Amino acid sequence: MERIMLRIEYDGTHFVGYQVQLEKRTVQLEIEKALEKMHHQHVRIYSSGRTDSGVHALDQVIHFDTTLSLDEATWKHALTTLLPNDIKVKSAHKVESNFHARKNATQKTYRYIVLNRKEHDLFRRHFEWHVPQQVSMERIHEAVPHILGRHDFTAFAASKTNVKGDKTRTIYRFDVFKEHDRIYFDITGDGFLTHMVRIIVGTLIEIGLGKKEVSCIPEAYETLNRRVLGITAPGHGLYLKQVQYK
Amino acid sequence: MERIMLRIEYDGTHFVGYQVQLEKRTVQLEIEKALEKMHHQHVRIYSSGRTDSGVHALDQVIHFDTTLSLDEATWKHALTTLLPNDIKVKSAHKVESNFHARKNATQKTYRYIVLNRKEHDLFRRHFEWHVPQQVSMERIHEAVPHILGRHDFTAFAASKTNVKGDKTRTIYRFDVFKEHDRIYFDITGDGFLTHMVRIIVGTLIEIGLGKKEVSCIPEAYETLNRRVLGITAPGHGLYLKQVQYK
Repeated sequence: MERIMLRIEYDGTHFVGYQVQLEKRTVQLEIEKALEKMHHQHVRIYSSGRTDSGVHALDQVIHFDTTLSLDEATWKHALTTLLPNDIKVKSAHKVESNFHARKNATQKTYRYIVLNRKEHDLFRRHFEWHVPQQVSMERIHEAVPHILGRHDFTAFAASKTNVKGDKTRTIYRFDVFKEHDRIYFDITGDGFLTHMVRIIVGTLIEIGLGKKEVSCIPEAYETLNRRVLGITAPGHGLYLKQVQYK
Repeated sequence: MERIMLRIEYDGTHFVGYQVQLEKRTVQLEIEKALEKMHHQHVRIYSSGRTDSGVHALDQVIHFDTTLSLDEATWKHALTTLLPNDIKVKSAHKVESNFHARKNATQKTYRYIVLNRKEHDLFRRHFEWHVPQQVSMERIHEAVPHILGRHDFTAFAASKTNVKGDKTRTIYRFDVFKEHDRIYFDITGDGFLTHMVRIIVGTLIEIGLGKKEVSCIPEAYETLNRRVLGITAPGHGLYLKQVQYK
C-alpha cells in the first residue's frame, strides 16, 4: 500500500463544491470516479479542506492510499486523462504513510479577486466579483491590520459552519493591493472557518464603499455577532492558492 | 418606426452559434427573446454575420426595427437587464432606416488566440486553443504574406459553407505576434467564408509545427482543394473583434 499526494487545480464554476453530496457534481466525486476506474474499486480521497460552490483552487492538496504501483509521472498522466477538463493534476508525489492532507496542513493561503469598475468583464464573470461602485483602497488599508493576528473569528463564520468548539484562528499575512481595475486579497492563516475569507472580503469592500466603519471588526471580535459585519462576498471570486505543510 | 443598432459582446461557450436553430441556444434567439419581452411581439434582428458554436464576440453589430421610442441609454439598460449574463450590450445607437448590419459592413477583424506551452490554462480553456508542441514563429511569419491580398479562398471554406458564387476575398491586414506563451492572430478582410479564419490559423499552426510547408497556401489558391491545407482550429479560440462601416 502506498500513499499518494496530489496537487490539483480546478475551476469551481460547474461544481457545487468540493465535498461529496448526493446527486451533485463535486470535485471529490470526480476524482474518486477517476480513481475507481483505475482500481476497479472505490478509493476514498482526503483533501486539505473543502471549498464552497463556485470556489476555485490553484493548488489544492489531496491524498489517498493505493495498491497500484505507478511512478509519479504516470499517476499525473493517468489521472489527467481520466479527469474532466475543469480539474487538473499539477503533480503527484509518493508520501509517508502518516501524511494527511488536512491534519498536517499548517497554513493556507486564499486569494480573492474583485473587479472594481463600472463595466463587468464578461469573459471573467465566473472568476472575480464585480463591484461597480468606487471602492476606497485607503479605507480598506486602514482595516487590514485589524484582521491580522490571533482572534476569535466566530462572527466571521457562516451560521451553517460545521466547526465545533474553538473558533480562534491566526492570520499571519494579509496583502491587499490593486492592479489596474482589480483588487487582490491574499490572506494566509493557520485555518479558516466556513465563509470566513468571503465575510472578511465582503466586510472590507463595504468599508471601502463607506457602508461600514473599520470599528465593526473589533466589535465583531467582542460581540461574536455576525450581523455587525458586511455581506458574504460571492464564492466565484475566491481561490484556494496554497496549502503549506511542515 | 426607428432602426436601432447594437454593439454587443458575448461569451460563445454556451451557445451553439449565432443563428437561430430550432431547440438550440443561440445569441440571436436570446436577443430576440429579450426584444419580444419589451415589444410583446416578435422582433427580427440582423447581425453583421453569424459566428460558429463556441466562437466569441468582442464587438458584434446587429440591427432591428422598433415601434418603441426610447433613448440610447435606456435601450442599453433595458436589454442588459433582460439578457442572460453571457451577452452584454456595449452600446445602442439610432441609425438611418437604410442601415444594415451585414450589407453595409465593409471590413471585419477577427482575433484568434493560441496558448503555446506544455500545460494548458484551466481558467482560459474556453477562450483559447491549447497547442502544447513548440510552434516556430519564424515559419509562421514566412507564411503570413501569402494570406494577405486578394485570393480565391474556396479551399479555406468549410464544405458545408452557405456562400454561393464568388469566393474571392481580400485580406487587408494580418498581424501575428507572440506575447509570453500566447500567439495572437489579428486578421482584417472585406469578408470571410465559413471557417476561413479557423482554417487559416490551423494551417499556420501546422506550418509552425513543421507538419505543412508554406507552399501549401499558394497550392490551395491554385487547386482550390481543402485537403492541401491544415486542420480547422477549434472555434473557442476565435473572437469577432470589430466590424467596420463606411
